[in-house]
Amino acid sequence: MADGTVYLVGAGPGAPDLLTLRAARLLAAADIVFHDALVHPGTIALAERAEKVAVGKRHGEHSTAQAFINKRLVDAARKHRVVVRLKGGDPMLFGRAQEEIDALAVAGIACEVVPGITAALAASADLGISLTRRGMSRSVTFATPRVGRAEQPTDWIKPVLETDTAVLYMSAHEAQSIAAALIARGKPPGTPVAIVENASLPDVAHQITTLKALSTNGFRPLSAPVLLMIGAVYREALERPALHPYCSHQSHLSAA
Amino acid sequence: MADGTVYLVGAGPGAPDLLTLRAARLLAAADIVFHDALVHPGTIALAERAEKVAVGKRHGEHSTAQAFINKRLVDAARKHRVVVRLKGGDPMLFGRAQEEIDALAVAGIACEVVPGITAALAASADLGISLTRRGMSRSVTFATPRVGRAEQPTDWIKPVLETDTAVLYMSAHEAQSIAAALIARGKPPGTPVAIVENASLPDVAHQITTLKALSTNGFRPLSAPVLLMIGAVYREALERPALHPYCSHQSHLSAA
Repeated sequence: MADGTVYLVGAGPGAPDLLTLRAARLLAAADIVFHDALVHPGTIALAERAEKVAVGKRHGEHSTAQAFINKRLVDAARKHRVVVRLKGGDPMLFGRAQEEIDALAVAGIACEVVPGITAALAASADLGISLTRRGMSRSVTFATPRVGRAEQPTDWIKPVLETDTAVLYMSAHEAQSIAAALIARGKPPGTPVAIVENASLPDVAHQITTLKALSTNGFRPLSAPVLLMIGAVYREALERPALHPYCSHQSHLSAA
Repeated sequence: MADGTVYLVGAGPGAPDLLTLRAARLLAAADIVFHDALVHPGTIALAERAEKVAVGKRHGEHSTAQAFINKRLVDAARKHRVVVRLKGGDPMLFGRAQEEIDALAVAGIACEVVPGITAALAASADLGISLTRRGMSRSVTFATPRVGRAEQPTDWIKPVLETDTAVLYMSAHEAQSIAAALIARGKPPGTPVAIVENASLPDVAHQITTLKALSTNGFRPLSAPVLLMIGAVYREALERPALHPYCSHQSHLSAA
């Protein structure tokens, strides 16, 4: 039998109905699904006839675990026609897809990537605040900061300092030191910050604060996915909270 | 009768099956749909029972046209229960959603935003090259450059210079001067550039080049949507094209 195809599929930000039609079709046709632990159970359930295998966390698998996932994908494609690797958000943005794509190429296994809604777009929809705005924001930077001593702060901080709107993924546990580092490097302390947890889910929550307040008070890290969204586009929500939320969808929101 | 709700819905990058399940459900339920001219006919056709109204281009409506769209959305919500404003890509990223959200808020009309797949994610899936990569890229900047005299080049150029991977939207007509501006400001001339046209569509096409070649030879502007993707993650495809494409999906691709 010819080898199957591995589909690297974006599961989107959380809400099962923010999956794409193509992803839903592939899940329904899948023989086996390897999914990140944080993918919504309602999304995984769309793979009605597939064997389901939970692998790793949404983000930050260790490289040994990644090598093991790579091997399992190759082995599965030797046995099955439709193999789905289901990743939170979008595979190509903080999804570590390249390691899997390269491993499949080396093994001669066909591979196709299906994009997904990344969390920053879902959080923007929840807030009712656009990442770009005429006359205010024409550049948007997504980054994963690390402020620990093991890595260079310049890896992430320069584009975040220079961009109009920044969205920081996987940064909740370091929020206080990230805010302090940005201020130390010249970002105005009054720069507005929107903190969004559980984007797209029923328990989505947000708060609007400033870099200064975040650097002083920190942020209680949660198990939920959190985004730090930084820039002038959040100033109106900071200064005139009574006019916020704009959108009915935000009636689900409460301060974190 | 109570006013209806306006849904600002992302149509995704082009391929109709890269729409979200939620967007498809809303289109099926819509009484009236105001869609960008560049949205795929197959996507618009999902709104089976709706009146369809083409408004503006995908990007760059004039502000007078925008004010007219705002008014039509408000008027439609006074008469209909489900009003869909269907925008190419994602509403919150270069979609000018804020102007519509604010106009609806002023009019007291309920509004909800449904995210869509933005073109950069679809183009990355087409290329089989991740925007982020361990040890190489942990920041990604999306920007709309303008190099004409009417606007400040610093609006967009600084984050693009500093980020690991940059994706420039709506930039095909200025590609040559953008590349020259980036080199003049210190970006290495050998920096790889992936040019992707018609991301996600059957006639998707790409070429991999360098900033220097782009600044010398320019790029024949097409009517199709084009992304300029800049950064070290494209170096392997530039230097070892025989190993590229990685993914079967790329068998659809040909050099532009």
